[in-house]
Amino acid sequence: MTVSLVGAGPGDPGLITARGLELVRSCDALVYDRLVAPELVAEASPEVLLVPREGLTQGEVDRLLVTLARDGLEVVRLKGGDPFVFGRGGEEAIALAEAGVPFEVVPGVSSLAAVPAAAGIPLTHRGVSSHVRVLSGHSAEDAPGSGTVVVFMGLQTIARVCANLVAEGFDAATPAAVVSNGTLPAQEVVVAELGELANAAQGLRSPALVVVGEVVALRERILAPLLQHCTS
Amino acid sequence: MTVSLVGAGPGDPGLITARGLELVRSCDALVYDRLVAPELVAEASPEVLLVPREGLTQGEVDRLLVTLARDGLEVVRLKGGDPFVFGRGGEEAIALAEAGVPFEVVPGVSSLAAVPAAAGIPLTHRGVSSHVRVLSGHSAEDAPGSGTVVVFMGLQTIARVCANLVAEGFDAATPAAVVSNGTLPAQEVVVAELGELANAAQGLRSPALVVVGEVVALRERILAPLLQHCTS
Repeated sequence: MTVSLVGAGPGDPGLITARGLELVRSCDALVYDRLVAPELVAEASPEVLLVPREGLTQGEVDRLLVTLARDGLEVVRLKGGDPFVFGRGGEEAIALAEAGVPFEVVPGVSSLAAVPAAAGIPLTHRGVSSHVRVLSGHSAEDAPGSGTVVVFMGLQTIARVCANLVAEGFDAATPAAVVSNGTLPAQEVVVAELGELANAAQGLRSPALVVVGEVVALRERILAPLLQHCTS
Repeated sequence: MTVSLVGAGPGDPGLITARGLELVRSCDALVYDRLVAPELVAEASPEVLLVPREGLTQGEVDRLLVTLARDGLEVVRLKGGDPFVFGRGGEEAIALAEAGVPFEVVPGVSSLAAVPAAAGIPLTHRGVSSHVRVLSGHSAEDAPGSGTVVVFMGLQTIARVCANLVAEGFDAATPAAVVSNGTLPAQEVVVAELGELANAAQGLRSPALVVVGEVVALRERILAPLLQHCTS
């Protein structure tokens, strides 16, 4: 019994990941979003229990995933885009962690860069733009010193990066992390308050990504079953 | 002769897209970044011309892609992460467009969300964070009214979204776009100045993504061969 939270990508069925497609093809139950390509739902085997998400509340989806997994099924929760970018995947992950159901997150191609790309627009371009802000039309305004900050290639200049964020209004106690070799077996994660991050990250190697914001604190709830038995 | 600019994903070889993997398996020449998983390079057929990108300047890579394509080869340019997120894919796309070489962009899973996900951290979470800033440790500071802005679920509130951006310092003449049904055959793109975008986007349907910033102007150079023969 495992639940896989799988990103289906931005629309084109060819943009699901190889790992995600493998899981869709081998699962026992598939709970899928309305915007997921029908071609991907059709990849599931004919005996699979197919459940459209439409019409269910988020709480009902959470309970359904737990119930199906406890029934011993291999469950794929197929979500449009990426589960963790405006996808409420964090809520489902926390529900599974709290129910003690093992789960895996398989990231997807987010619309974030793929949809502009399909229109011939790169998000960043040397000499034109080196930073990106991502908002939701449904949410309230930005407040300085809030939200999530992601820094690419930030390890070498981490002291300056963190100091700049504090200078512009981030609390030095904001949860922060550096992830080195992310998604690989050699992955290392350091979590610290923003004001301590540069120190804590000493010795980590590139490639590394810096993440700053209250979302970092969700890690303990999402990984609770894994973190119980180790120190970091 | 085609060049495919393919995102290899954040590191884990299972996170390449199904379409990307298909192209790697069927290409005649593969030009690959140092950080691309060796398992993916090994998916190419034994007769493929393999060229590591390391040691080449960006200008040399651009010329190599053009030369290989003009030799009649199906070329895959396999890039770490996503080609258009701190990946200099835009530069390669423009070089190909200016040389008249047909090309395709196959987005990849960017480290942006996937690396935090692998560490148990969602980029956004209801009640915790609904906006994300993406920076590079190598680049200069943020200036208000610059960079790229991406708005999810922004079509319904587009007039307010655009007015807010102008109020905070964006020039009303900043290039902007709305992409409806991105990556699908039903895709529609509207390009206008930020101050005119809400009007220009009337009639478009969800799902849609709003993109604002000077990168939108790159579209004409990247899609030049396609746009020559149509009006929008």
